[in-house]
Parts: sequence; structure tokens; C-alpha cells
Amino acid sequence: MGLIVQKFGGSSVADAQRVNNVAKIVTDTYKQGNDVIVVVSAQGDTTDDLIAKANEISAKPSAREMDMLLCSGEQISIALLAMAIKNLGFPVISLLGWQAGFNTSSSYGKARIKKINDERLKNEISKNNIVIVAGFQGINKYDDLTTLGRGGSDTSAVAIAAVMHADKCQIFTDVDGVYTADPRKVENAQKLKDITYDEMLELATLGAQVLNNRSVEMAKKYNVELEVLSSLTNKPGTIVKEVANMEKMLVRGVTKDTDVARVCIMNLPDTPGVAFKIFDKLAAKNVNIDIILQSVGRDGTKDITFTTTCDNCDTVKEIIENSFEYQEAKVEINTNVAKISVVGAGMESHPGTASKMFEALYESDINIQMISTSEIKISVLIEKENADKAVSAVHKAFFPAK
Amino acid sequence: MGLIVQKFGGSSVADAQRVNNVAKIVTDTYKQGNDVIVVVSAQGDTTDDLIAKANEISAKPSAREMDMLLCSGEQISIALLAMAIKNLGFPVISLLGWQAGFNTSSSYGKARIKKINDERLKNEISKNNIVIVAGFQGINKYDDLTTLGRGGSDTSAVAIAAVMHADKCQIFTDVDGVYTADPRKVENAQKLKDITYDEMLELATLGAQVLNNRSVEMAKKYNVELEVLSSLTNKPGTIVKEVANMEKMLVRGVTKDTDVARVCIMNLPDTPGVAFKIFDKLAAKNVNIDIILQSVGRDGTKDITFTTTCDNCDTVKEIIENSFEYQEAKVEINTNVAKISVVGAGMESHPGTASKMFEALYESDINIQMISTSEIKISVLIEKENADKAVSAVHKAFFPAK
Repeated sequence: MGLIVQKFGGSSVADAQRVNNVAKIVTDTYKQGNDVIVVVSAQGDTTDDLIAKANEISAKPSAREMDMLLCSGEQISIALLAMAIKNLGFPVISLLGWQAGFNTSSSYGKARIKKINDERLKNEISKNNIVIVAGFQGINKYDDLTTLGRGGSDTSAVAIAAVMHADKCQIFTDVDGVYTADPRKVENAQKLKDITYDEMLELATLGAQVLNNRSVEMAKKYNVELEVLSSLTNKPGTIVKEVANMEKMLVRGVTKDTDVARVCIMNLPDTPGVAFKIFDKLAAKNVNIDIILQSVGRDGTKDITFTTTCDNCDTVKEIIENSFEYQEAKVEINTNVAKISVVGAGMESHPGTASKMFEALYESDINIQMISTSEIKISVLIEKENADKAVSAVHKAFFPAK
Repeated sequence: MGLIVQKFGGSSVADAQRVNNVAKIVTDTYKQGNDVIVVVSAQGDTTDDLIAKANEISAKPSAREMDMLLCSGEQISIALLAMAIKNLGFPVISLLGWQAGFNTSSSYGKARIKKINDERLKNEISKNNIVIVAGFQGINKYDDLTTLGRGGSDTSAVAIAAVMHADKCQIFTDVDGVYTADPRKVENAQKLKDITYDEMLELATLGAQVLNNRSVEMAKKYNVELEVLSSLTNKPGTIVKEVANMEKMLVRGVTKDTDVARVCIMNLPDTPGVAFKIFDKLAAKNVNIDIILQSVGRDGTKDITFTTTCDNCDTVKEIIENSFEYQEAKVEINTNVAKISVVGAGMESHPGTASKMFEALYESDINIQMISTSEIKISVLIEKENADKAVSAVHKAFFPAK
């Protein structure tokens, strides 16, 4: 029928029973006449346990040795899954990242895939083997092991789907698809049948935590059709692809992100180049900025406010406070905030979306601190304690109970 | 000064504290001006834990996938040891078996080293790195991971010492050398300063459990000087080398081996070729035979008795019972036996050794079931329950309390 890439996260292979469950899903797909390549992460808490082992020995372990250590996690899970599939009587082979041809950049802990040498993959598929590949890992030009960083296994799966021209890349997680909001917290949250890459990117960035961003970007670039689905239920999931407007939904989802810090720099001189100088310094230290707001100058001074992720707070404080140019400047950092967003490719042609969102917040008596918009999303910054209430209110406005 | 290969077993790197202890030993050696290559096994019970994981999934896991699984054990320990050494401020790099150039035969679980491509090892040494190598593992012609089988890390260490022309190969274990008998069980057991390869081979085969046989054979073949010593005490160990007669000891040690089964085949026809036919069949099934004893024929029949290891009992029973040629034959297998041996290169020129041993056993009222001798050892088979008593008695005869 075709070639299907399936990716299973750590919780899907956490113990022998779950490994057997995954073996069942994989072999069912194979029995339907498909070639199957499976990408797996390390079992359950393995990666955390290995990190703990390293930290017992060194507060700041060598990045190269950390990758050497962590790569053992997927090595264990691919071997176990291959054993389980063989046990069911199917031809199968497990491959480490380097055996599957993953050539990466040299930067340990956050390597980028440079090239996949697909010779071995093709060879194993031509022998009708189910191929199990260790996600998250590759090899650099020194023949040393590297890891791809957070969410790396998703990226591995999409990369294989791209080079092997797979018909579909299925990402199995512990949720059964992409929802209009977090179904554990929001009443009437609906599962989406499909969604575009761009919408998914916004949702991923905004904290929907279903798919890793890099993998969606790569899927978009190589036009790999993704499906997000659960390894525990036997239901269709959500398809992520280029065009997904069959449902004609204005808004695809409502998300919250609480890993946000609001940084206010007050008392800056109201002269040209101030914003450039600040953000240039921040960029040099890899501080990613999200919403930016600049006040209108008054009395020769102005304020600049922006948001970033919480882990950047110390760096930001240091950069601003050590800047000689603006000795009068005062920095105020507030992490007691949350970003609520609505995402949907349809909204750019519907000017009412923003006001509908603001109305829902107003009716819930929630104050908006900052606003940011793009073609397919509207985000607002609010007090953290109101985050869940805000998501529910906004979601209800766009997705009234049927 | 020179190049020293150091090998540390699983118990020497079982936890963070022990890993740090090994890091201390290694860096002390490096500080004395030596190049150092370190071979490590998997931590403590890691290998057993991984085997248990595999058995949870499959009663008979694929040998290839088993090697894939097990190789992760040493991967963890080399990374941790490298972190610990880096932490002490020394240049260090860890290498997996394949990175260190270990090319092996294809047979998973019991691969033989075919060649060590020493390019990377030499390169890292030339950069003044302490090199940590994963023992027990290599890669076959398919680019798949293999393991060397029981005691494989010792073999890895000796092989590296051989190709790198190391000045010494130190094997760190939980005993501090080779003793004339098991010091935990035999009073007055003495540590040997040195011992020959041949003596060590007999001691290893006979159950002294200090060094793996393959590694001693390889050390002999390539004339690698071995030292057996403890990672927990800072004392010189026992040197294993070609000539070691400075001590002029008649006997080097007394050992017991309880993994012995005595097989009696009775009622065989007293005709030529019987022994050949039986042992040919056993050899075809890889049943290793130790002592062989054939009775003098009587009434047209004879008996053949031999010893083998306990795991071969079922195979032996099946082979003999399914042999059409000797339908009258009866097989009796007894695993309630132990083999006691004295080993020493000096004994061939001292005919009194055997009688001294037999006298000690007689005085302890221990019956000898079978006897076997070689140029450097004398072995007897006795009832298992007398094994410890026999070792003590024989040891006392050769090594009287000073």
C-alpha cells in the first residue's frame, strides 16, 4: 500500500506491556500491506534517570559525554520493541541513529540533522523488514554520538518520512489528537479532524505541547503529512497538512502558555536606536523575544515592554543592568503572567475575531496587559491566576456547547 | 613513561562514588606520565537488569537485538567515567566498541575479535586524551553491534594492550590478586606475586574466577603482561607473564569447581570405535569434555565416564539415548560432584605432588572418584559436599601455616 513512519514517545514504550501494545499497532499496520519504519524514544523516565546519574558525578557534565550517555536510552527501547515484534512472528531490525544514517551537526545536545544517508533504511525495507529506529540521535563528523535536543524524536520521524517519501508520518502520543483547547481543563474542547502546518506551529509554540515545533517546520518544508494520535485508543487522530480548510472553522484552538515573563524597561531615553541596541544585545545572548510593546515617549523618556520565556530572566536582567548607555533605565520582570491565544487560518479575513476574544475576557472580568496579533493568531497577556478561566471563557465564545 | 591499559569490572563502577574512585586511580596513573586507555564493563547489575527486561518481553529474544540491548550498559559506564575524569580536570574521551575500532565476527552474543582498527585510539592518545573504551562490545561486517560473551571486557582490554603495544594491562577486580586458594574460605591462602600464563589458564578454567580464560590466552599469544589487582585497595597485585619462577613454588594454587557433571555410559559394546562415535557426536553439539575414564572391557561390554559442565546434561542425555547403535547403553548423570585441582608449573619435575594431594584427601576421609593430570595440574573428582573441606586439606598440605 505505502510507506508509513510511526513515532512512539517514551510513555508509549514505558514498560513491557506497552512495548507489546506498540508492537501490535506496528504489526497491524504492516499486515495491511504497508512498509513500516518506527521511531521510538527512550522508555518512560529513562532519560531523566540518566541525567540524574550524570549529575551525581558532575554538576556540569561534558556535553559530548552527556550525549554518549543519553543515546543509550533509545538503544534500549529499540531493542526491546524489535524483540516484541519478532515475538509476534514478523521480520524486524532495530537501528541506532547512526546506523539509520543520521548525520548531524557537531553541537552536542542540540544537533541539527544535516543529512540522512538512506542506504541502510532502503536496504532493510527492501528485505521486507519492519525497521525500528532510535529517535533523538545521530552522529557528527567526528563519528561521535549527538542528540537532537528536546522533541528530537518527532524530528527524527519527520526527517525519515521526508527522505523516504513516506505516505504518512504518524506521531503517537498520550493524547488522541489536537484539540481546540486542553480537553482535561476545558469543557466542550473538540478534537480537530485536520489542521494546517501554520496553525499547528502556532499551537505548538503557544503551549499546546502536542508536537515539537521543529518537527512541524520540517514537515511543512518537505510536505510530510502528519497524523497525531494516541497509542492507547484505536481512533483516528488529527491530520496536519498544507491545506486543511474543509471544516471552515474560524478558530482552530485556544491555548495558554504560562512559561512567560514580562520584562518592562522603564526610563529609557526617547531617542532613535534604543530598541535596536537593546534587542541586538538580547539576540546576541540568544534571548528569544515574543510580544514587544513600546510606549509613546513623554518627558524625553519611553518604556519598552516585551515577553520572553522564564529561563531567560537572569540573562535579561544582567544585560540591561550592565548596559552603560542607559544608566537611568529600570528593569522590572514579572513572571506572574500567562499568554492566552486563539489560532486559526480563517481569522485574517474575519475582523470580528479579536473583538469576540476581548469581549469574552471582559465578561469574565480579566484584564488584558498586552496584545499581539499575527495573520493566524491573537495573543493576550493576562495575570497567571486567570489563565484557565480565560481559556474556558474564550473557548466558549468560539466553540459554544452544541 | 609508557602506555598502560586498565580494565575495571562492573562492581568497580557500580555507583557514583566508585566511578569517582576509578577516576582517581586512572588520573593518578596519567599524572605519573603514562598514556592511559581504560576499558570498563557495565555498572553493577545493569547487564542482569537489561536481560530481565528482555525476558519480560520474550522468552527467547533475538540474539542481534540482545546485543543491541546489552551494549547500552557499557555506553552508560564509559560516559559516566569520562564525566568523572573531566570533573577532575583531565582531558578525556569515551569510545564505544565500534568507535575504538573493534571489528568482530558476526555471531551475536559470543563474537570473536577479528581486528582492531587502532586509528582512532592512536589519534586520541596523540592528543593526550585519557581514552575510555566500552568493553565487551564491537561491530560486525553488517555494521551491527556485537558482544564478546562472558568475560568479554577482559578480552577487550588485553586486545587493546596487544595492538597498542601497551607496557602493561592492569585488570582491576574485587580481589587484590591471585591466591593459592580462595582467601574467603581457606585459611593461610597466600597472594602470589607472579604466575605464568599457563598456570593462570589452568586456574581460570578450574574455577578461580579471577580472569577470563580467553583474555589470558590472548595475553599469552601476544605476550601482554597482565596485573590482577583491586580497585579498592592501593596494593600491588599479581603479575601474569611468560616466565614467573622467581618464587620457585611447586604449586601455585588449589581450586575447586562445582559446575561439573559426571556422566557414566554403561553397557557399551567392547568394540573399536565406540569412544570415537560417542565423543564425535558430543563434539558436533559443542559439548566440552573434561576428564575421560574408560573401564577395562568385561563380558563384551565396557563403561565410559566423563565430566562436562552442568549446562550440557540435557544435550548429553539426548545424544546418548537417541543413539541407535548402542541401544543397550544406560546413561547415569551425577551433578553432585566437584573437581579439586592443584596447579603449578613446577610439579612436572616433582613426582611427589600427586601423592601429597591424595594423602591429604585420604587423611580427610574423602573418596576420589576420578583423577586427571596434565603437566601443570592434577585434578580429582569428589563428592560436592566435601569440596571446601578438600580444598582446605590440600592447601594445608602444600602451604603449611608459617
